[in-house]
Amino acid sequence: MNIEEEVLQLISLIDGELKEILNGDYSHQEIIFKSMNYSLFTGGKRLRPIMLLKTFSMYNKDIKSALPFALAIEMIHTYSLVHDDLPSMDDDDFRRGKPTNHKVFGEAMAILTGDGLLNLAFETMSSHIVDSSNTLEDYKRSTRVMAEIAKYSGVYGMIGGQVVDVLSSSDHIEESTLLFMYKMKTAALIQSSIVAGAILGGASEEDINILRDFGLKLGLAYQIRDDLLDRKEDSKIDKLTYIRHYNKDRAKNEVEDLSNEAKSLLGRLKDLDTSFLEQLTHDLINRKV
Amino acid sequence: MNIEEEVLQLISLIDGELKEILNGDYSHQEIIFKSMNYSLFTGGKRLRPIMLLKTFSMYNKDIKSALPFALAIEMIHTYSLVHDDLPSMDDDDFRRGKPTNHKVFGEAMAILTGDGLLNLAFETMSSHIVDSSNTLEDYKRSTRVMAEIAKYSGVYGMIGGQVVDVLSSSDHIEESTLLFMYKMKTAALIQSSIVAGAILGGASEEDINILRDFGLKLGLAYQIRDDLLDRKEDSKIDKLTYIRHYNKDRAKNEVEDLSNEAKSLLGRLKDLDTSFLEQLTHDLINRKV
Repeated sequence: MNIEEEVLQLISLIDGELKEILNGDYSHQEIIFKSMNYSLFTGGKRLRPIMLLKTFSMYNKDIKSALPFALAIEMIHTYSLVHDDLPSMDDDDFRRGKPTNHKVFGEAMAILTGDGLLNLAFETMSSHIVDSSNTLEDYKRSTRVMAEIAKYSGVYGMIGGQVVDVLSSSDHIEESTLLFMYKMKTAALIQSSIVAGAILGGASEEDINILRDFGLKLGLAYQIRDDLLDRKEDSKIDKLTYIRHYNKDRAKNEVEDLSNEAKSLLGRLKDLDTSFLEQLTHDLINRKV
Repeated sequence: MNIEEEVLQLISLIDGELKEILNGDYSHQEIIFKSMNYSLFTGGKRLRPIMLLKTFSMYNKDIKSALPFALAIEMIHTYSLVHDDLPSMDDDDFRRGKPTNHKVFGEAMAILTGDGLLNLAFETMSSHIVDSSNTLEDYKRSTRVMAEIAKYSGVYGMIGGQVVDVLSSSDHIEESTLLFMYKMKTAALIQSSIVAGAILGGASEEDINILRDFGLKLGLAYQIRDDLLDRKEDSKIDKLTYIRHYNKDRAKNEVEDLSNEAKSLLGRLKDLDTSFLEQLTHDLINRKV
């Protein structure tokens, strides 16, 4: 199976499980299930859950046991997009060619949908831990992973980065602030996917540290590459990006450097099949869309 | 120590710990810590964390071990108020006599502040579980509590109730919809505080079931009493309440009935000092503010 086939198979697994969860036992609040469903299925690449599952599978082949955490990260990613698109935030009408959540369901429902998805992420993880942990080791690993994901997605992670993004629409931004924003807003959740996969799979502390660095480099490279692609042609671009702060050449060099550093970190993992993560790094950094 | 003194002591414990958590190691995102702090300290009664701690203390005197869960519930309650006050939701300018979060920090920051508090609730619980669990029993109880809180606060609980509230601003509402809304929007989080305290304290399944019912009755009575007090004089009242749907007399009777049912449930708990919960029920249901 080549990487494209494998990715398609993982997407199908992830999508099937997400549909299952969204098919809950609702009554009067049915609309929020429709709304969460709408935003979870707008053609996302499932990048973060795939990263989690493939990092996990370097250590353990039973990827189903890691799936609830992968779904939780996709829910967190999706909620952040729903809130980010709101009129008082980025005010985007379209995402991936489809109307944004608040354009379809209204602003109040979009706020609740984001809240619902964030909450559902922790519901999914915690009920999975309760239902499927047997040994002390199971609990230790899975609660540690939840704590890591919570930190990376919160005010010390992704939300912290969003705060800086919201504040930084002026032309003047310190380099340290820009790097903080990149590290937190985009890299944090990518990093948490990699770290979560490693811990769940039973990686050594040494491997976890290497993969934590790898996730950071990959996440930063991904965000700068995103700036270079400048894909938000259908929305206002009034935020500072790496490109505007420096220039295109410096940005391209930076992506190259980060990508090489990421690959060399993978080289330090002993006796593991890192080919998928290597290929993923390569593909993400050279992607055209 | 009488109940008032005990409550003041608990509030001081809760506030001190909340301040400690909010005094985190932030950098460029300092503003969201100020904003979370602002909304967490606007004179809230700390009702839910007190309920959790006092239910817990019927079974176990070491209330410090239950504190992180109590704080988490207060964070969840506070985030729901911040989002509820937003212009696209209830559009409230004041809460407890102070400007609402978005009036002070702006709408974008208020959305992120709510997200931040919800996330921080799970960060606080999961990192506490990781740091302080030793035995299998510790993990079982604490992860079960987190799963319960997550469910009660999410799309099957509080958020589900909010959804119905947002949809139901017309004059026509089915009785079943109204009850669903009351059960979910207000009672769910009160119920989860009681249930969480019981599970953490090591209550039997029988006691947990009794207290789950007690929490529901108390939560419903609390919401109907809230309607009778009609305290939101400084904000638009365009939502349906129990009072408008039925009438004041029926509402008063309902509060009375629910309160009696709640007290009789407490009577079924064997060999426990339920005096605090009894007094609390009495005070909440007869409160004037």
